Amino acid sequence: MAIKIIAFDADDTLWHNESYFQEAENRFKDLLEDYLPQHTVGRELLRTEMDNLPWYGYGVKAFILSMIETAIRITDGNLKSRDIETIIGFGKELLAKPVVMLDGVEKVLANLAQKYRLVLATKGDLLDQERKLYKSSLAGYFHHIEIMSEKREADFQKLIRHLDVAPAEFAMIGNSLKSDVMPVLQLGGHAYHIPYHVTWDLEKVDHHIEHENFRQVEKISQLLEYL
Amino acid sequence: MAIKIIAFDADDTLWHNESYFQEAENRFKDLLEDYLPQHTVGRELLRTEMDNLPWYGYGVKAFILSMIETAIRITDGNLKSRDIETIIGFGKELLAKPVVMLDGVEKVLANLAQKYRLVLATKGDLLDQERKLYKSSLAGYFHHIEIMSEKREADFQKLIRHLDVAPAEFAMIGNSLKSDVMPVLQLGGHAYHIPYHVTWDLEKVDHHIEHENFRQVEKISQLLEYL
Repeated sequence: MAIKIIAFDADDTLWHNESYFQEAENRFKDLLEDYLPQHTVGRELLRTEMDNLPWYGYGVKAFILSMIETAIRITDGNLKSRDIETIIGFGKELLAKPVVMLDGVEKVLANLAQKYRLVLATKGDLLDQERKLYKSSLAGYFHHIEIMSEKREADFQKLIRHLDVAPAEFAMIGNSLKSDVMPVLQLGGHAYHIPYHVTWDLEKVDHHIEHENFRQVEKISQLLEYL
Repeated sequence: MAIKIIAFDADDTLWHNESYFQEAENRFKDLLEDYLPQHTVGRELLRTEMDNLPWYGYGVKAFILSMIETAIRITDGNLKSRDIETIIGFGKELLAKPVVMLDGVEKVLANLAQKYRLVLATKGDLLDQERKLYKSSLAGYFHHIEIMSEKREADFQKLIRHLDVAPAEFAMIGNSLKSDVMPVLQLGGHAYHIPYHVTWDLEKVDHHIEHENFRQVEKISQLLEYL
């Protein structure tokens, strides 16, 4: 069966994102270094984020709330209001960041849009993801936009059914093996992995993938050799 | 043209919601009453929510962040970490609330689902709205679920186009004149208003609506007299 639909992840696949989050996290660690060594602050933040994930989901607001909770815990109740304002400021800056596209993105989308129906499939804050798409000026290339609360197998199954194609006619492109590649391969779809130079701890997996429907490329422009 | 699709708002149309938020807001006002009279705290919170709306959008996480910001401002930097933990707790309790359906909802959906395609069109946190729908056991009645970052005319236009019907074939049911009724009437669709006993300040409008495609009912079960 030939591929009919190509779905793209957004953050760190079409535009830079995780690097901004890590920048904010570093400033958060600086803020708290009187209380704990930086790497311990990072570990505590990750723990809070994992605990909050089922409640808050993904995105900037969840990140701000997890930073605040972590800071209160670490400082044993001695945190100043001013520091909380600073943390909220880190988050608001993230929301206001410019959208910087990765090299070659627009050319690849323009090319593939002539042969396939393109879909955007991303998780995160609803409003924030819409804002980034709008700022990117890429919305016109996509036949359908899906902002998902999770990217598990069942979520892709629902999306693929909604798009009215067979899994074998669906290809997913993204930087996360865990969220973009593995669930889609499981369903019988195709997946192309384009690693980003940094990966959020919660997206890290230790798998080595070999699968006839899977391919890893270094840059998005290499997709044009295969699709 | 006959109506083909009926879209339902969720919060305060299918299940109780605003009453939970107001309960949380009252506890927030109690927490801060040493600093300001309760009605002033409410006004300050509303101001913060309005300022944050373009950045955070709707939902519980935005509400928690706005409460924290308001509390810091009101207490002039004297807020204790413990109070911030209390505020975060108000929010997490909201996320864990049971979903209590309004009277007659399931019967009406079961009835209308035999004659129309039903759609859920709601704004708020993506994950939280999905969770409430899942808890409600109503998901099976809906042909399509749309969680929207806003409910303006352009947003409904996109939804109606996606559903592949004419605006005159689309009816919206909801408790907000501003978000459920006015934009849909503007587009040429039908709207049924079912007021909820409390309305969030940001949804209040002063309009009196007279329109051939508009009807106000007191309870959801009355829809069956018209649809």
